[in-house]
Amino acid sequence: MARQERAIRTREKIVVAAAAVFDEVGYEAATISQILKKAEVTKGALYFHFASKEELAQEVLAQQVSAVPAVRQQDLTLQSAIDEALLLAYLLGAGDPLVRGSVRLTVEQGALDGLHREVPMRGWVERSEAVFARAKADGELLPDTDVAAVARMFVGCFTGVQVLSHILTRHQDMVERVCDLYRHLMSSIAVPGVLVRLDFSPARAEHVWNAARAQARAGEEVALG
Amino acid sequence: MARQERAIRTREKIVVAAAAVFDEVGYEAATISQILKKAEVTKGALYFHFASKEELAQEVLAQQVSAVPAVRQQDLTLQSAIDEALLLAYLLGAGDPLVRGSVRLTVEQGALDGLHREVPMRGWVERSEAVFARAKADGELLPDTDVAAVARMFVGCFTGVQVLSHILTRHQDMVERVCDLYRHLMSSIAVPGVLVRLDFSPARAEHVWNAARAQARAGEEVALG
Repeated sequence: MARQERAIRTREKIVVAAAAVFDEVGYEAATISQILKKAEVTKGALYFHFASKEELAQEVLAQQVSAVPAVRQQDLTLQSAIDEALLLAYLLGAGDPLVRGSVRLTVEQGALDGLHREVPMRGWVERSEAVFARAKADGELLPDTDVAAVARMFVGCFTGVQVLSHILTRHQDMVERVCDLYRHLMSSIAVPGVLVRLDFSPARAEHVWNAARAQARAGEEVALG
Repeated sequence: MARQERAIRTREKIVVAAAAVFDEVGYEAATISQILKKAEVTKGALYFHFASKEELAQEVLAQQVSAVPAVRQQDLTLQSAIDEALLLAYLLGAGDPLVRGSVRLTVEQGALDGLHREVPMRGWVERSEAVFARAKADGELLPDTDVAAVARMFVGCFTGVQVLSHILTRHQDMVERVCDLYRHLMSSIAVPGVLVRLDFSPARAEHVWNAARAQARAGEEVALG
């Protein structure tokens, strides 16, 4: 393995370990030594990549949106939007450390710790806005739909359904709750002919995850030549 | 003032001060001495009422639902549901310490601190379920509406819209975001004839607050004879 590649892997291992610790105990209670133990790297390696716990947390926040792999494109743009939400719900339910740790960091306000929690939130809002703008261009949305407001609303609702699912069931009912949410929200923005063709079934989540993984693997193989 | 009444007021002053401190710095960073300073009571008074920070936090959580005064009853039950949400949004935006501190405690996961965050969440879900069951009995809901699932969804969505509004605007756009949310969600559960009669305007929030305050004052006067 080339030295640079090894450095990248070590860095990623540290980020995932940090996310796992943030998920378990929260930002304030987390310590560098817990992260070192989880990552199985030396103190020197960690401080080579990150100057502080804060810098690490900021990186975990920054990777939140990209931690969710791209879903396979669907005929209906709104189906792709549902699939993205299902995938994120699936990863939270399955306990993906990067996604869970990062989401926990986002939702907790912290005490003047200087973390930029708006980074992932703006990331999700932008990503949703792009998808809904495409859906609108494709004629899938009711004519008076305000794409920016709707994107913000979807991101807000997903966040809260996540918080509630975590508090009441430790994310065990996350996929079902998101299906419920999307069935209701989509019915307020989609044209009827599109709405009846959308698939909101919880069983879809695992298929979406497998397809996204297969797609990501194929992409890696292409990249490796 | 009778001794018992004085004790009740002191206890309440401590709870509100604790909520304000939790709102400012979060549960973990909060200290009893910060709460004493804010409440302007002696250590003895505080420990007479509460054995620990945890017990105080649990009381702040317990008072969350009742901290929002009852709204004036409307002809349409769904309008009352909207008004309740507007009132809570208004109190968060206006910086009500008990509501804000309690909501922050609920949303933050904490590190194995033993706090029962499900208490207020279950309280909101139950309260919503009762309102939606009444709306269903009144014929305001689409026939196939699952009242329990809808109640949970509304509470989850409100929670998340709150988190996002706090992160992006420090609750300044809270009322607008809740109006947006309810306009969309209600269109997926209300019968058309009811939907067109509902008022989702942000300006309504302040009127609802004034009416609820007047109603609470009138209730107190009756109680005092």
